[in-house]
Amino acid sequence: MQAAREAGVGIESVCGGKGTCGKCKVVVEDGEETLSEATAAEMKLLTEDELAQGYRLACQARAIEDLAVMIPQESAALKQKIMLEKAETPVKAQPIAAEIALSVKPPDVRDVRSDFLRLREAFHLEKKPSKMALSVMRRMPAVLRKSHWKVKAMVYDGEEIIDVKCGERPSRLLGIALDVGTTSLGGYLVDLKTGKTLSAKSKLNPQVSYGDDIISRIQHAEKSEEGLEELRGAVMRGINEVVDELVRSSGVDSGDVYDAVVVGNTAMQHLFFGLSPANLARAPFVPVNQKSIRVKAYEAGLEINPEGYVQFLPQVAGFVGADVIGDVLAARIYESDKNEMLIDVGTNGEIVLGGGEDLVSASTAAGPAFEGAHIKCGMRAAPGAVESVSIDPETFEVTFHTVDDEKPLGICGSGLIEAVAEMLRAGIVHSSGRFNAENESSRFDAESMEFTIAREDETSTGKPVVISQNDIREVQLAKGALSAGISILMERKRVSKEDVNRIHLSGAFGNYINPESAMTIGLLPRVPLTKIRQIGHGAGIGARMALLSKDLRKKADEIADKIGYVELSIDPDFQEEFINALPFPSCKAISTPRKP
Amino acid sequence: MQAAREAGVGIESVCGGKGTCGKCKVVVEDGEETLSEATAAEMKLLTEDELAQGYRLACQARAIEDLAVMIPQESAALKQKIMLEKAETPVKAQPIAAEIALSVKPPDVRDVRSDFLRLREAFHLEKKPSKMALSVMRRMPAVLRKSHWKVKAMVYDGEEIIDVKCGERPSRLLGIALDVGTTSLGGYLVDLKTGKTLSAKSKLNPQVSYGDDIISRIQHAEKSEEGLEELRGAVMRGINEVVDELVRSSGVDSGDVYDAVVVGNTAMQHLFFGLSPANLARAPFVPVNQKSIRVKAYEAGLEINPEGYVQFLPQVAGFVGADVIGDVLAARIYESDKNEMLIDVGTNGEIVLGGGEDLVSASTAAGPAFEGAHIKCGMRAAPGAVESVSIDPETFEVTFHTVDDEKPLGICGSGLIEAVAEMLRAGIVHSSGRFNAENESSRFDAESMEFTIAREDETSTGKPVVISQNDIREVQLAKGALSAGISILMERKRVSKEDVNRIHLSGAFGNYINPESAMTIGLLPRVPLTKIRQIGHGAGIGARMALLSKDLRKKADEIADKIGYVELSIDPDFQEEFINALPFPSCKAISTPRKP
Repeated sequence: MQAAREAGVGIESVCGGKGTCGKCKVVVEDGEETLSEATAAEMKLLTEDELAQGYRLACQARAIEDLAVMIPQESAALKQKIMLEKAETPVKAQPIAAEIALSVKPPDVRDVRSDFLRLREAFHLEKKPSKMALSVMRRMPAVLRKSHWKVKAMVYDGEEIIDVKCGERPSRLLGIALDVGTTSLGGYLVDLKTGKTLSAKSKLNPQVSYGDDIISRIQHAEKSEEGLEELRGAVMRGINEVVDELVRSSGVDSGDVYDAVVVGNTAMQHLFFGLSPANLARAPFVPVNQKSIRVKAYEAGLEINPEGYVQFLPQVAGFVGADVIGDVLAARIYESDKNEMLIDVGTNGEIVLGGGEDLVSASTAAGPAFEGAHIKCGMRAAPGAVESVSIDPETFEVTFHTVDDEKPLGICGSGLIEAVAEMLRAGIVHSSGRFNAENESSRFDAESMEFTIAREDETSTGKPVVISQNDIREVQLAKGALSAGISILMERKRVSKEDVNRIHLSGAFGNYINPESAMTIGLLPRVPLTKIRQIGHGAGIGARMALLSKDLRKKADEIADKIGYVELSIDPDFQEEFINALPFPSCKAISTPRKP
Repeated sequence: MQAAREAGVGIESVCGGKGTCGKCKVVVEDGEETLSEATAAEMKLLTEDELAQGYRLACQARAIEDLAVMIPQESAALKQKIMLEKAETPVKAQPIAAEIALSVKPPDVRDVRSDFLRLREAFHLEKKPSKMALSVMRRMPAVLRKSHWKVKAMVYDGEEIIDVKCGERPSRLLGIALDVGTTSLGGYLVDLKTGKTLSAKSKLNPQVSYGDDIISRIQHAEKSEEGLEELRGAVMRGINEVVDELVRSSGVDSGDVYDAVVVGNTAMQHLFFGLSPANLARAPFVPVNQKSIRVKAYEAGLEINPEGYVQFLPQVAGFVGADVIGDVLAARIYESDKNEMLIDVGTNGEIVLGGGEDLVSASTAAGPAFEGAHIKCGMRAAPGAVESVSIDPETFEVTFHTVDDEKPLGICGSGLIEAVAEMLRAGIVHSSGRFNAENESSRFDAESMEFTIAREDETSTGKPVVISQNDIREVQLAKGALSAGISILMERKRVSKEDVNRIHLSGAFGNYINPESAMTIGLLPRVPLTKIRQIGHGAGIGARMALLSKDLRKKADEIADKIGYVELSIDPDFQEEFINALPFPSCKAISTPRKP
């Protein structure tokens, strides 16, 4: 695992190397005899067949000499299907960084003022920028003279001259919006002059090799002095790869990128800046800094123009982070005078309820199951993941679609929800969550308590894709947590589901799920389908909006200052609501016809 | 020369390696045959005897293989005798950096605000500091918890928290004042809580190996891309050695130094920050930035607390720099309602005339001769330099003193002025500057036109210390330039020498010269001796005053904004005044008795 991390080769690791998830299986092809012996964890998590075939867990087996290892398809950390749309944001380009053309008065014997003074004087502004970094000051005299005193100055926030360029050459003023997710990194390259999104790229957060979940990473950061720096380095490496792909694909120069807006949850914000997340993980869950943080790009290690700035939008509290602030901007619920509900299920599930500036938020540990963790055949929404399922209630025959139409490899969150909804409707599963043991379909194995979605002859691994009793329990726990969170926020604001104007679903999961299925399993409150709006990658859209608009960036700070937060883990009603939300809604109550 | 520079071994180099001054003589002890052949410059500047003994010029001889070289005493770059007094400055300690003890409210489940917010809240200030660098934020959470929420915050300018320390341990708040001279670096370590100067140290500016004068260094900076960085690196290395000596000698930690104020001329300011001095050296002599520049210590490369700040005081114009602003602060002429004259002769000679905020300044190339350049036996005021001379007008016998009472090695500026004054009084030299060829003293050689100050059997080199006709011409040129500058400023302000309230002499030279001798040769206008005040190391005193007082730092900016400047090199009256000032005043006019 360590060698793979160092080589930048992605291996799945849900538990972060504790030897409990069994996801990091690798096959030793050469040099097996030089490896450390199989540990108790490997004995438990690998079958006898697998052990005989040379399977080992990458986090357990210690390499003593050189050896050759094959990473089977099911263990390779695949790029998740995430939603990045270049769709334009409905925001007027009013960026913080501005390009200003200047005609500077050349010096003569009667006017020997410094280059900096004469550059400043050339601004026809009431308040002239007063700051200039040393690196810019070092280049300025030559640029002024080479361009015959006609230059373009890049000015940040009206205060600081962050670049001086030849005035006659065409120039770009670019920005980058980044969503630093626990699992995925998404980036957008934006032309700050026109407001146009030039490209969108994503990749897996390289931190996943230190654990799929936030807690594993926080533990790694605490383990040693280097741990935190390793995690910071890993995410920054991934981000800089995204930045590199963005600028290459658009044929532009990273030195023309002067501004970056970043969103992500509180833990990601801490790891992005190298701040210790230790106190986030233990009560009372205190962050180091929850306000928006703006630093020079070079300080953060972001490879854009080093004198440009990078600003991480503000956090709310707990794990409700800047990504949710991005969602609120994207859904524009801060403008609404009705009650809006926003749900973003990533690795965690975040909920916001309210309208205008009267908002309340909460975070639940809803996500991991929907990202494939703890699910027998679970996987992320990568190529080969079953993403949509339909079951004939008479014959129990299954039809499914996979991401990119590849042979099935596993099942992702949206597929899992649809499969469970379909099993409920077909009576394969009771509303209690238990399999109907009387089902006589060949797809149901009453002994192992598993229902087969894709048979072994249909899959790319030769192993069937199944839903186990335990998988259904995981879905119940996840939807119970999210549902309980929603109930508590509705109670807190004395809002019934009839009072909710819209439910905004954000993020990849929210956009790929079938809302009808989500209501069938009780993940979402049952409302008319017309009230549900899938807003796309809300965090990324909001980040782009804040990148483009000085006013919206200020608005983000205001929202974060005013938004309420309910810490569900210590809420007295949470356990009760959670237990009540574990059963699935009775299907008899469902009147909406199922989609074909 | 290059090898010596890289090894940090100081060799004299007035011309900066052009092969014109002949000061960098070295003796090759082993491996002479592997050296490049003697150049035309060496043939011209070395005697046949010297060539036979293995003398070479370090800037000319190229080493091809390893060899052993001896640096004779006369070529070793010696530490100059410079004036650093720990005398307290008459300023109330009101520093920009402040230490504030805080009692921070610990978090609990009902108050989960971030560490940063609760630290800010603990300030009982109307305007709470709002900024904190990442490096401090990274350390803060552990400090808060280890010190049980009782901390001391170091706050810069009321705005930024630059350090957080355990509240119970004693702590220091230190600052450093630096005078970056063309020849010497002087530093003071100051306790910002008490205002006391803890130590004072100086050393030779390592840039001297790139040339004694500013122009040689500017040429080196222009020669290649690395040239400027070499010079910046050299001066910063020297400064950091001074800083290291300051903190070691006081037994304190450099991390407790949070603020630094730097003075120096315009060229030194450019080289300190790595700004190109190219346009300073050619008409119309435009600096990159003449305002005060404040950056983080780590940006400048100054080895104090990296999050502390370093501020270079503002420049006036041309080569009139922040050192003169320091002089103005030290002499407090900005407070006077009379006409004050300030003269600081370093490598250049700077003059300020006026009172209050109505000041005018100029710079002349007066210095090099007084620092030993172009003077046959000239040297800096290092041990062995003849610094004071008396000549019996009857017998022409000479008595002299040397720095540190060592055997004579050469003559420094103050010795040269006194020698010339004594030769004038004794009639050895006419007021035209020519030797009286009829002098029959054994000390006078009518053929070589030299007067012997120290005979060869008295010196440490076995060579006599003499004053040549050319040396007297150099003194005339230097004093003529300074004197012409003074005249032009007096005309400009319509001030006669009777109107001058005081003449403040600043800097080592100004403090070591005999004012009577300086008036005798016409370097200073003849005024009653009681009007002359030797203020010590004015630039360093002023830097310490600005370090200690926020108000005086603002005052320095105001003075620099308002002070007038006369560019003598293009002044229409300068040539005329200069030629008129070349002869020495007639000694018959001198009524003051010579000192014994």
